[in-house]
Amino acid sequence: MKIIDGGVTAAKGFKAAAAAAEIKYKGRTDMAMVYSEVPCVAAGTFTTNVVKAAPVKWDQDIVYNHPSAQVVICNSGIANACTGAEGYGYCKETADAAAEILGVAADSVLVASTGVIGMQVPIDRIKNGVKMMAPKLDGSLEAGTEAAKAIMTTDTKKKEVAVQIEIGGKTVTVGGMCKGSGMIHPNMCTMLGFVTTDAKISKKMLQEALSEDVKDTYNMVSVDGDTSTNDTVLLLANGLAENPEITEKGEDYETFKAALNYINTTLAKKIAGDGEGATALFEVKIIGAESKEQAVTLSKSVVTSSLTKAAIYGHDANWGRILCAMGYSGAKFDPEKVDLFFESKAGKIQIIENGVAVDYSEEEATKILSEEAVTAIADVKMGDATATAWGCDLTYDYIKINADYRS
Amino acid sequence: MKIIDGGVTAAKGFKAAAAAAEIKYKGRTDMAMVYSEVPCVAAGTFTTNVVKAAPVKWDQDIVYNHPSAQVVICNSGIANACTGAEGYGYCKETADAAAEILGVAADSVLVASTGVIGMQVPIDRIKNGVKMMAPKLDGSLEAGTEAAKAIMTTDTKKKEVAVQIEIGGKTVTVGGMCKGSGMIHPNMCTMLGFVTTDAKISKKMLQEALSEDVKDTYNMVSVDGDTSTNDTVLLLANGLAENPEITEKGEDYETFKAALNYINTTLAKKIAGDGEGATALFEVKIIGAESKEQAVTLSKSVVTSSLTKAAIYGHDANWGRILCAMGYSGAKFDPEKVDLFFESKAGKIQIIENGVAVDYSEEEATKILSEEAVTAIADVKMGDATATAWGCDLTYDYIKINADYRS
Repeated sequence: MKIIDGGVTAAKGFKAAAAAAEIKYKGRTDMAMVYSEVPCVAAGTFTTNVVKAAPVKWDQDIVYNHPSAQVVICNSGIANACTGAEGYGYCKETADAAAEILGVAADSVLVASTGVIGMQVPIDRIKNGVKMMAPKLDGSLEAGTEAAKAIMTTDTKKKEVAVQIEIGGKTVTVGGMCKGSGMIHPNMCTMLGFVTTDAKISKKMLQEALSEDVKDTYNMVSVDGDTSTNDTVLLLANGLAENPEITEKGEDYETFKAALNYINTTLAKKIAGDGEGATALFEVKIIGAESKEQAVTLSKSVVTSSLTKAAIYGHDANWGRILCAMGYSGAKFDPEKVDLFFESKAGKIQIIENGVAVDYSEEEATKILSEEAVTAIADVKMGDATATAWGCDLTYDYIKINADYRS
Repeated sequence: MKIIDGGVTAAKGFKAAAAAAEIKYKGRTDMAMVYSEVPCVAAGTFTTNVVKAAPVKWDQDIVYNHPSAQVVICNSGIANACTGAEGYGYCKETADAAAEILGVAADSVLVASTGVIGMQVPIDRIKNGVKMMAPKLDGSLEAGTEAAKAIMTTDTKKKEVAVQIEIGGKTVTVGGMCKGSGMIHPNMCTMLGFVTTDAKISKKMLQEALSEDVKDTYNMVSVDGDTSTNDTVLLLANGLAENPEITEKGEDYETFKAALNYINTTLAKKIAGDGEGATALFEVKIIGAESKEQAVTLSKSVVTSSLTKAAIYGHDANWGRILCAMGYSGAKFDPEKVDLFFESKAGKIQIIENGVAVDYSEEEATKILSEEAVTAIADVKMGDATATAWGCDLTYDYIKINADYRS
């Protein structure tokens, strides 16, 4: 696998554009369009929240009931969630506008929104944005980057990544972008993620690859424990790489899945590290678990613990909070067998052995915890299963951002 | 039911004392003793965290396996959690010291600790504290208040309450104190709560009353979603009110349970309102639920949502976050039927009707949300069940307190 520059426009035949449509923000781009020259098979995973935003319902219908898709229209600023029949109608109007100008079917236009819940989108501005973007569609890497910037809300960094693999002697490219900073605790998928590939792959295998992979990637991220109404990951494959079509499990499928996993893991970690107000990416690895499920439960409980996250912000090796969060996770284990380590670029240190503190240096621990990415590793000594979850520290700025987000 | 002054010493035959034993804090009291002149039947509920502090294990043995108890020794500053066999041994040493000086059996001495996880208690200071407190034991209300102050950690207010009821022509008193401010998300009980009564009641009925009542009181409180290793509620009944013994369900049991519920509800709300860094008590009422369980799930999900809590801090009627938190709770309901209201001393306002915003005044909503106690009421229109959960806002001070709690 070769890591290359770019994002959603890295794969053959994909173009993108962005526009400043003044949906809610001023003086920045807030709409993005991703377009494939030919129809794609599409896979998607969506929020499990009972309260689903209108675009989620729109996209679910297309992904589940239609053979192909060709366009994604995304706006930031307003989430089009809790907007009733009117909000759903605006999804259709958006798709109709794009279909007309691009000469595609309306049911091949996916839509996505992110931002404030409960407001209606200004549909005339949305349609105007579509009109502005269509003629600007461009296959350059820069156009992909502009799209990645336009979908940001409280994100501080654009998030994109791309890789290349070989399948059946053909070069296949997979690239993606995402956004996500607050209300991040994906369940079955993340905030908004868009992955494009020129791989030739059946719809069934594409969906299977995505559904499997989100479990280990986006679903292992938590910024604040709040599962959004808008979580959506879309994966479009247009087949232009001309590899032998992947229609079943096997070597080619695994090669593709490894590339997809790299894209999704990278994007997921970017979301966690850019969590609202975050100063550090906080990674939690559980090792020696008796099952994957147990490892997942334990790692997610630690990564979502407010007290642990505040301690990470304070560079404080307050390991009792980590053991406590493991303890209330619901998973069974023997606390008196747990070993715990902290690790970062600055080194690795053992903090507890068999549930009790070893004689470690607080100074060294603080040094290790002062890096921009820190890892806690807990060994529960029950088996061979592992899991890794990603989150961030809990800071003053998280409060600042969220105490007055709407105004 | 008559609300009276006092706390753990309000009921007949109960005495208390406090001491500055320098367990971890300096210049303040940090140990408390509660003593009954005669043996009590004891009931208790304890943390469901797999990681249980040594005093929890000690008390569980006494409550579950011994007929009576007479003394409670509590220290603040160090939690005696994750301290292995050594920590459990210190519980026994504490009980032995109290037993010797008070002339009671060691297995009638309950112990409780709260504070930093992972440090051993300085057992010589603990034993010295026991020696200081024993001669100071006093039945005055002031002595109870001193005990309530000594068990505080990051609490900013002491928490105590007492009531009187009539059972079989006799006046029965129930009083209690508690502490709790961070790591508050009780499951089966709360941080530390101590309730005393002179009621004559069988051990079986006492435990049943407590176990039932914590579900609606302490278990409905969340400050930060972190279920502690030390959560303990102890209820001691010494029978000195001389009422006909309560040995079965019936009118007397219900009278007693109503008093206990008032004590526990009051203490639970005091914990929520004094949550670490909190500026407001945040109450979430779900009405019109199809079952109690559904109402509990929905109300707890909202009260623990970091985004909702930050919005409450900002006096921001960001109702989308409330609907979102209901949506990811796991409970099934129709978001398009939900009505939502905010209420406080400053008034009541409807925000959404059938899942969509009504034309409310943001200014008025902010005024209502600027009080020290605010309530969100959501009607899901499915039945008659209700539940109320209590929490607090999420503030800069929560971060400040917890980013550097240990040092």
